[in-house]
Amino acid sequence: MIQTVDPRTAVASETTLVATDDAEVARIAAAAASAFADIRRRPRPWRAEMLRSIADELESERDALVQTAVSETGLSETRLDGELTRTVFQFRLFADAVDEGGFLEATVDHAAPTPMGPGPDIRRMLIPIGPVAVFGSSNFPFAFSVPGGDTASALAAGNPVVLKAHSSHPLTSHLAFTCLRRGLELAGAPADTVGIVFGQAGGATLVTDPHIRAVGFTGSLATGRILMELIAERPTPIPFYGELSSLNPLVVSPGAIAARGDEIAAGLFASVTGSAGQLCTKPGIAFVPREADDFVDDLVGRARLAAPQTLLNRGIHASFGRLEDALVREGGALGRVRTRRGETGFTATPAVLEIDAAALTASATEEAFGPLILVVRYRTTDEIIAALDVIPDSLTATLHAEDVELPALDGLIASLGARVGRLVFNGYPTGVRVSWGQHHGGPWPATNTLHTSVGVTAMRRFLRPFAWQDAPEAVLPDELRDDFRSIPRRVDGILSVATLGP
Amino acid sequence: MIQTVDPRTAVASETTLVATDDAEVARIAAAAASAFADIRRRPRPWRAEMLRSIADELESERDALVQTAVSETGLSETRLDGELTRTVFQFRLFADAVDEGGFLEATVDHAAPTPMGPGPDIRRMLIPIGPVAVFGSSNFPFAFSVPGGDTASALAAGNPVVLKAHSSHPLTSHLAFTCLRRGLELAGAPADTVGIVFGQAGGATLVTDPHIRAVGFTGSLATGRILMELIAERPTPIPFYGELSSLNPLVVSPGAIAARGDEIAAGLFASVTGSAGQLCTKPGIAFVPREADDFVDDLVGRARLAAPQTLLNRGIHASFGRLEDALVREGGALGRVRTRRGETGFTATPAVLEIDAAALTASATEEAFGPLILVVRYRTTDEIIAALDVIPDSLTATLHAEDVELPALDGLIASLGARVGRLVFNGYPTGVRVSWGQHHGGPWPATNTLHTSVGVTAMRRFLRPFAWQDAPEAVLPDELRDDFRSIPRRVDGILSVATLGP
Repeated sequence: MIQTVDPRTAVASETTLVATDDAEVARIAAAAASAFADIRRRPRPWRAEMLRSIADELESERDALVQTAVSETGLSETRLDGELTRTVFQFRLFADAVDEGGFLEATVDHAAPTPMGPGPDIRRMLIPIGPVAVFGSSNFPFAFSVPGGDTASALAAGNPVVLKAHSSHPLTSHLAFTCLRRGLELAGAPADTVGIVFGQAGGATLVTDPHIRAVGFTGSLATGRILMELIAERPTPIPFYGELSSLNPLVVSPGAIAARGDEIAAGLFASVTGSAGQLCTKPGIAFVPREADDFVDDLVGRARLAAPQTLLNRGIHASFGRLEDALVREGGALGRVRTRRGETGFTATPAVLEIDAAALTASATEEAFGPLILVVRYRTTDEIIAALDVIPDSLTATLHAEDVELPALDGLIASLGARVGRLVFNGYPTGVRVSWGQHHGGPWPATNTLHTSVGVTAMRRFLRPFAWQDAPEAVLPDELRDDFRSIPRRVDGILSVATLGP
Repeated sequence: MIQTVDPRTAVASETTLVATDDAEVARIAAAAASAFADIRRRPRPWRAEMLRSIADELESERDALVQTAVSETGLSETRLDGELTRTVFQFRLFADAVDEGGFLEATVDHAAPTPMGPGPDIRRMLIPIGPVAVFGSSNFPFAFSVPGGDTASALAAGNPVVLKAHSSHPLTSHLAFTCLRRGLELAGAPADTVGIVFGQAGGATLVTDPHIRAVGFTGSLATGRILMELIAERPTPIPFYGELSSLNPLVVSPGAIAARGDEIAAGLFASVTGSAGQLCTKPGIAFVPREADDFVDDLVGRARLAAPQTLLNRGIHASFGRLEDALVREGGALGRVRTRRGETGFTATPAVLEIDAAALTASATEEAFGPLILVVRYRTTDEIIAALDVIPDSLTATLHAEDVELPALDGLIASLGARVGRLVFNGYPTGVRVSWGQHHGGPWPATNTLHTSVGVTAMRRFLRPFAWQDAPEAVLPDELRDDFRSIPRRVDGILSVATLGP
């Protein structure tokens, strides 16, 4: 039987859930493939309604979902309530995008003469890739887990999803799964459009199953590497979308310190310690001018006063302490405020470490998942640029600077941009907006560079292009027929927006 | 010194070219990174003109390029002349796409309230990924080599390119490279926007160079697997776009045989033997009704009468004979017409093998790169669908059928579509049209499923999404500023086409 552990108390309880064995994983994946044969033929408007039906079911279980997640993650009710709101919003935004249809990239090239001779009729559209395996994360029991962005974008793209429940929150996963199932059922979808797998062994079996066509994973670099190796050894390798770690450098300019240092110290400390620092976009490293002692003292003072925070599970709690220690011992960072364990559960207080830019080495830059920030003191912008070469690439970078300083920071902005997927100005990278233009991805090891796991374009990961050559109209999808006008399309090279019509 | 071999005679000659050593590969890659720092800041209209400048330079060397390629590949002058036309056309089409700007996927989400609280301003656009390594292919000295689609799409996306010349045509590669360099120079681009590497060892070094951000490769599955392993072992893995092999099944229905069997036999034979069968889209396996003996006899008769054709190099010539033999001995195919070697050079005559659908095994389906077709005789559509499970996935599939038969072939069409990236009706998969909607990709091992190497969207492989959050206007690219209107953009969820403007 699978256990659930309350991280606030470290007390484990039995559940009625069991680890999924290999035969059952194979059955679930095959059932997802059967569901795919059905749902791939359903019209787009139906699919949008299916997503809205799931959103409604999640909303209707809000209290139970949030309370279950509180007891399995130790995250606050306010945070989890907001996360569920975001999760529901996400399904509805994808529904809107499915209705709008631009994501299909529908393209029609009519038969025409070319310099190479007669060109055939070519029509292209993105089509669903097939059953997707989605691994839940420890730190977002809703938004990056069973009902999260990977699931919503894969379903929106027209694919079944087989979930791997995260061991940190099995009951939340199971309850969210029943909401997905009920939403699908009410929309008339096959039940096996979603499946769920419990246990680490089942997850490994899942990524090697021949029916699975893509994998979405949020978690550690080490686990990500293992899954990637399993996938590379498949007879047919498949796309792996991993979000594996991110330090998210943040730079404060001298001008910003002078203009609003107090405000930034407060904002930065809140961003580092929100959700106990267990966010993929937590700014884990901040570049602060050498002379800005007051700013650093402000951070230090806040950390000293902070109460213990609950970390998600035993593993994260243990490695947080170990990593903090290594950053000091091996990385040479000064422990301005060291973390202290609380009396009960998996608790810890925030830590502030400090190092000079010139002394920064790779040993000082390992991501410590939890409420910790490494303050790097710099004299010149060139010192920051040099130090960035030591830091792995990230999801985000942030710059606090006054407008008048920007021209002189041109090189720094280019260096930060080359290393991340999102550049934040005078704000904080945490609190990722879910919208049409959001990009939540970055160069390795942040993710696989080319795709996002948040925002409407997250669907692109689970779609593949397909071309029909000289196809009879009866064979074409509606969206590629000549008289179809209600989605954006590119016809003979000219992009047109939708008009009212069939 | 590097040798060049005329495949028509098997005579080798010395060139003045030398294999690139590791230090030189590192220098070339670093120089490409420096060029990137320059060209990434150039405006889009400049980039379009740069592509047109390259096209003009290739055009101006047409005679020398074609004659050099004839002597290094044994392909006909007509074929190579057409290939160069296609290559030049491709640069100009990408220039048009760069001007049009839709490929940027420019998206603006203005700051706005959301159910989760205030949403920041988010602006997203695709940006160039960085220096790209492009491996030339043996079979397309222009269109998939130094000046080919990977190069054109990587440059169009704003990236420098480091080429790995194919050993089959070093002189053609070098001459095409000088055209690229001259075109760049005339456009005012840094010379190191393109670089070139000769020799197998240099190619392996290239894919592990830290400056290289993506790899485009067309070639064998074995070599592709080796490059993928090298990339997976990099500290920072990068995207690998391989085109590794493709059988391209073609199905002829009973109705099509009755209505136009003679015409299809002629067209199929031409498609199998064009360019001596050395095309990635060659239909290597054809499903023909059991009763259509006349159709198969027609193919057999054509093969018996055919003159020897020149294969590209010693390796392809040797493995063609070996594979044909294995398909008969291990695959159990009947050798209706066995290949015969010509008297001089790397020549061979076309082969027609035959097998019953029920007897088809994986051993009978290895791709024989050269003028060979395996005819699979079937009784029912279900036999074809079952046989497809034995065949690796492909770039294309083709169906010859009468309109009246289509409803009954629904399941077959779905099965073919699930296994390929392009579905051709009543035509041939060879002769790939270069256009906005073309898709030349397919599930593994054809390619990596999600991307194309032909057509305007080939650029997507060498672009990455980037988001700016609350960025001051001075920092934003022109295309994301509020008053910019001259490319398609999605603003607050609404897609608009370009209007005349700044």
